[in-house]
Amino acid sequence: MRIIAVGILFLCFSIFSSLSSTVSNDKVPPRFPSSVIRPEQLSLATKRGTKLYKARYFTQILDHFNFNPKSYQTFQHRYLINDTYWSGPEKNSPIFVYTGNEGDIEWFAQNTGFMFDVAPYFKALLVFIEHRFYGKSIPFGGDKDIAYSNASTLGYLTSTQALADYATLIIDLKKNLTADDSPVVVFGGSYGGMLATWFRLKYPHIVIGALASSAPILNFENITSPYSFNNIITQDFRSESENCYKVIKGSWEQIEDTGSRSGGLELLRKSFRICKNYIDADALESWLTTAFVYTAMTDYPTPSNFLNPLPAYPVKQMCKSIDDPTTGNDSFAKLYGAANVYYNHTGTTTCFNLAYSPDPHGLDMWSWQACTEMIMPTDGNNQDSIFPESQWSYSQRAAVCKGYYGVDPRPNWITTEFGGHDISRALKRFGSNIIFYNGLRDPWSGGGVLKNISKTIVAIVAEQGAHHVDLRFATSQDPKWLQQVREREVKIISNWISQYYHDLANHS
Amino acid sequence: MRIIAVGILFLCFSIFSSLSSTVSNDKVPPRFPSSVIRPEQLSLATKRGTKLYKARYFTQILDHFNFNPKSYQTFQHRYLINDTYWSGPEKNSPIFVYTGNEGDIEWFAQNTGFMFDVAPYFKALLVFIEHRFYGKSIPFGGDKDIAYSNASTLGYLTSTQALADYATLIIDLKKNLTADDSPVVVFGGSYGGMLATWFRLKYPHIVIGALASSAPILNFENITSPYSFNNIITQDFRSESENCYKVIKGSWEQIEDTGSRSGGLELLRKSFRICKNYIDADALESWLTTAFVYTAMTDYPTPSNFLNPLPAYPVKQMCKSIDDPTTGNDSFAKLYGAANVYYNHTGTTTCFNLAYSPDPHGLDMWSWQACTEMIMPTDGNNQDSIFPESQWSYSQRAAVCKGYYGVDPRPNWITTEFGGHDISRALKRFGSNIIFYNGLRDPWSGGGVLKNISKTIVAIVAEQGAHHVDLRFATSQDPKWLQQVREREVKIISNWISQYYHDLANHS
Repeated sequence: MRIIAVGILFLCFSIFSSLSSTVSNDKVPPRFPSSVIRPEQLSLATKRGTKLYKARYFTQILDHFNFNPKSYQTFQHRYLINDTYWSGPEKNSPIFVYTGNEGDIEWFAQNTGFMFDVAPYFKALLVFIEHRFYGKSIPFGGDKDIAYSNASTLGYLTSTQALADYATLIIDLKKNLTADDSPVVVFGGSYGGMLATWFRLKYPHIVIGALASSAPILNFENITSPYSFNNIITQDFRSESENCYKVIKGSWEQIEDTGSRSGGLELLRKSFRICKNYIDADALESWLTTAFVYTAMTDYPTPSNFLNPLPAYPVKQMCKSIDDPTTGNDSFAKLYGAANVYYNHTGTTTCFNLAYSPDPHGLDMWSWQACTEMIMPTDGNNQDSIFPESQWSYSQRAAVCKGYYGVDPRPNWITTEFGGHDISRALKRFGSNIIFYNGLRDPWSGGGVLKNISKTIVAIVAEQGAHHVDLRFATSQDPKWLQQVREREVKIISNWISQYYHDLANHS
Repeated sequence: MRIIAVGILFLCFSIFSSLSSTVSNDKVPPRFPSSVIRPEQLSLATKRGTKLYKARYFTQILDHFNFNPKSYQTFQHRYLINDTYWSGPEKNSPIFVYTGNEGDIEWFAQNTGFMFDVAPYFKALLVFIEHRFYGKSIPFGGDKDIAYSNASTLGYLTSTQALADYATLIIDLKKNLTADDSPVVVFGGSYGGMLATWFRLKYPHIVIGALASSAPILNFENITSPYSFNNIITQDFRSESENCYKVIKGSWEQIEDTGSRSGGLELLRKSFRICKNYIDADALESWLTTAFVYTAMTDYPTPSNFLNPLPAYPVKQMCKSIDDPTTGNDSFAKLYGAANVYYNHTGTTTCFNLAYSPDPHGLDMWSWQACTEMIMPTDGNNQDSIFPESQWSYSQRAAVCKGYYGVDPRPNWITTEFGGHDISRALKRFGSNIIFYNGLRDPWSGGGVLKNISKTIVAIVAEQGAHHVDLRFATSQDPKWLQQVREREVKIISNWISQYYHDLANHS
């Protein structure tokens, strides 16, 4: 049985997605559209008479933790800023910082409308800091050809360096704004939410609290089951209809059988409208898997355009296609209909290209992080999985990484540095002011914090929520539960800020 | 006026002590006797039928924060262990870890009798972990000639790497002992106390609390006055007698005047019994300054042998010599008497060698740390100082470091990484279980935490205490206040452990 290794990465399958039982370096690049911001979001910003942000650069140090001559090298570190709503340093008005994750920071800013939505209420300055080695924040003279060339240069792409970047930049920014006493709150979704959590835990002298949305900080080592990720995807589809689940589950063998028959690939090409340049059963399976995984992740209650343009409740739409009686017993027609929801919601695509998919958000280097410290066992599939049964294999990951980058992962580093085991026991009496939002339809929620740890380290769990939906721009169609999630977040953050002002006034 | 730059280092003056108005690389090595453990301590250990500890080695990674090929190099990391009193993993008995500071870990273990004294009560395992680049924990094959040779190798000597070393080692050790649920408490004095504090703050998932003794975590940037260190020394001597203070304060000009006169150096040599190999007025002043600084730091209420063998209350003894009416107006005779308290308490030295002083505890590389991240402004002297008036000069430090190691310090790094500014505000509602002990006769106490921050981050301040006196072996002559300090520490640590067991039993 072919092993499908999915879900390793937040936003791109990258080198692991086409992993077969023989280790291969084949790469299935991530698939994303080039347009990411919804027109209504842009018009909202325009209505407010402002651009969403201005870009600025900070001269950042390459290596915070060593003092050898190389560590002193610097690079231009990009951040985005919006001071439209800020009441300024005189009033110690707050600074809201997004701790950028694995891609172009503009993309994350445009998909973190919550910060723009709440900024007027808090009179907050908005800052979105890019993660080193992504977007325009490239060490080694901004040259990706050098920065991405090998382990010697990529070695500086780590979460701890990124956190130290944020610390250094925020301190400098506050100094330049003479805003020493303005409280800082960090926000982040997905890996950005992990960074926001860790930033609050490691740099409490810089931030008073963190909103960590869909941050699977427990998806390391054996803390979370390696089946969890795909079990949630399975449940998402199964909750729509048993038939939908069964058709998808049965499709993998059918595709493989067809692909191995004479003329079968051409049948697959025709069924799925694959362009004429390239086809392969494994690649087709990866292409479908991508659609199911990302649709589950972004199963938002309103039309969205985070990864691809999607209708509201896209999993329901996929299952609607699959359950459509007009396609009878034609599984491929049903699956094609489902894939079309993800890949062709706008209806403009005439054929699908398996050989190439653009990476407009510059997510590629996550594969380096997933080969070094971000060893998140997510791609096990148990018997009931919607995907073919398979085991999470650390040794397989390690072998791929060795072949690809020449490095050995450090699978225990994240829990050594940031914890995770027995997190309630560790943080019950330590730390404060963290919100963990998770939506239970999000495959990543299995690795999230789903229970309150203390009075001030709290979990907000939305049964119907998907991947960091709370951070998206509010729309008039948002369901009540989503409005309530955001209201609760605003209320908690308000309390943090009030308490900070109280402490400030009392000179503590 | 010559600038005497003192107090920069915890335990050695190193490259800064003879800093004159023209920047110089002259080096006055630290002066220490070779014997450090008191006979009664050793006999105490012998009585218990055990050696103080056994040495073990752990294969430690060179660079925790990068993933380039060089970072994967390893070195043999030494730790000392004593399991005499431990009740073992079955009972989840606690593990007490000393976070080693800038020298041979055996020396610190031998001078941290408190841990041995309380281990039977707590049934604790004792572990003393050496700091990388000191003692026998030398990267680059254990070869100091390579490891200490230049900034490229010394670059890995940083506090953050040391803390990550401790985290990695403790996790591995607990695993090997199958003691996953044994609570860990960290202890440290001086820089070791800073590391203990920071370890609790950064690695709360590994340690449940920290006893930070005489840890000047606030002696960075402008948080603590650069005059504080020498003001406390001044006050120590002045509290004994106004005459004592005046004689010392007047001596510097007198020594310089004498040194610059024809035949003056020979008069100084004779007065202070300096050996015939070398003499210089500046070196003599440094030699005297060392005696005053270290005697103030180790002004213990019982005879001790931490830096040098000393009588009880050595500052009082020095002033007794100075105030001795039999020496009349002969300042040099008085100062010689004072110096003799520090340098020749055993009475066996026939002449003092200004050209050479041994470094039996391997403290030398603190000078690298003081040139990179440990920029602690301690050597200002105001008009009333017992030392000549002088200003703390960052640029002077930077110039010396540039000349010596070719590096630029990062003077803001420690507060960026660990905080310090407005510490009460930052930690009032974050973190728990830290004891800051400080003795107000200790010049480093000015940079310590002297007020309770919260119910669980507490300050224990002993008016009569000196540098981490609480951590020393108890003796029958210990004054009541010192016994009470230790009792309070034991009580607080007991509470941490009880609470931990409570949480463990409740599966939180």
